[in-house]
Amino acid sequence: MSDRGYGYIILLEERIRRDGIVKKGDILKVDSFLNHQMDCALFVEMGKEWARLYADCGVNKILTIEASGIGMASVAALEFGCPVVFAKKSLSSNMSGDFWESSVHSYTHNVDRTVLVSKEFLGKGDRVLIIDDFLATGSALLGLVELVRQSGAELVGCGIAIEKVYQEGGSTLRSKGVRVESLARIASMDEEGGIVFC
Amino acid sequence: MSDRGYGYIILLEERIRRDGIVKKGDILKVDSFLNHQMDCALFVEMGKEWARLYADCGVNKILTIEASGIGMASVAALEFGCPVVFAKKSLSSNMSGDFWESSVHSYTHNVDRTVLVSKEFLGKGDRVLIIDDFLATGSALLGLVELVRQSGAELVGCGIAIEKVYQEGGSTLRSKGVRVESLARIASMDEEGGIVFC
Repeated sequence: MSDRGYGYIILLEERIRRDGIVKKGDILKVDSFLNHQMDCALFVEMGKEWARLYADCGVNKILTIEASGIGMASVAALEFGCPVVFAKKSLSSNMSGDFWESSVHSYTHNVDRTVLVSKEFLGKGDRVLIIDDFLATGSALLGLVELVRQSGAELVGCGIAIEKVYQEGGSTLRSKGVRVESLARIASMDEEGGIVFC
Repeated sequence: MSDRGYGYIILLEERIRRDGIVKKGDILKVDSFLNHQMDCALFVEMGKEWARLYADCGVNKILTIEASGIGMASVAALEFGCPVVFAKKSLSSNMSGDFWESSVHSYTHNVDRTVLVSKEFLGKGDRVLIIDDFLATGSALLGLVELVRQSGAELVGCGIAIEKVYQEGGSTLRSKGVRVESLARIASMDEEGGIVFC
């Protein structure tokens, strides 16, 4: 386990404690500051922490997935000085060429989706940091890891805002040798008891 | 017409000239730096220019729409020191409560979509700048303008990266009294002749 910036962890955890809402069905609503309304100044601090954790790893590309990951990845990219590529959930008429493709199950929409990244923007020579807002079952992250594998790029690791440690995603990824750094790690949560951090 | 930062316009126009690709069907592909792979350092410069154009307008919220607008809006928000809200194209199971809703026609996917913003995050007292990557027919922007109108918030204006001036969106919006500031304004384009800026 990497050393973490104590000040930062408190900042995000306090924010989750103050503004996060636990709802039925294991849902943590953080849409007032993370994934509908976005506090981009908070994203700067998150970006600094990921940049500290992945310093000297030679990250030259950040990969995320539409839509909730894009804001934090874009702001974090300023700390890394590299571009962001976001995986798309559908093909549109202005997309052409060849794509890396994998399948992701969305629990919030209850569908399987193909996610795509143009082969132009991910390939050999890229050292990739994956950034996303949540890690729970790990489905989205495993899909992104698969895109990196197909492309021949090097996966440096994952930077996650909130990990539900009691779900299997984190251990699945780590057991595959993927480095995962989550800024807030939730041990348990429920509607009455609130949120317990690791 | 507002004064514009000459240096900036050259920066974006040169980038479009260098990396943009004109394709059949009036398509300008800018996915190597704007809306699939994203050059977030460029977004910083775009954010500075919008902040200069909308200085002293009291902007306290930026509104955009998933997915392509989110990166530039999030980085621009750092210049304004305000949060971003992005309109969603579908309801997911972790969304609840009341929403402002409007309809947007997507030409790239050829479907009408309901777009939603939670009533919690847009309302009276907000002074809103809408940010998006493209203005052509204006369908997405008109949908966002309608969300602002419903909410009772004040619309300060729109900040657009690329306007296709030969399409009707810009004049439709301006004729409704909406201030629109587009950083690169395309007078015409075709596969052979390339891109002509205003």
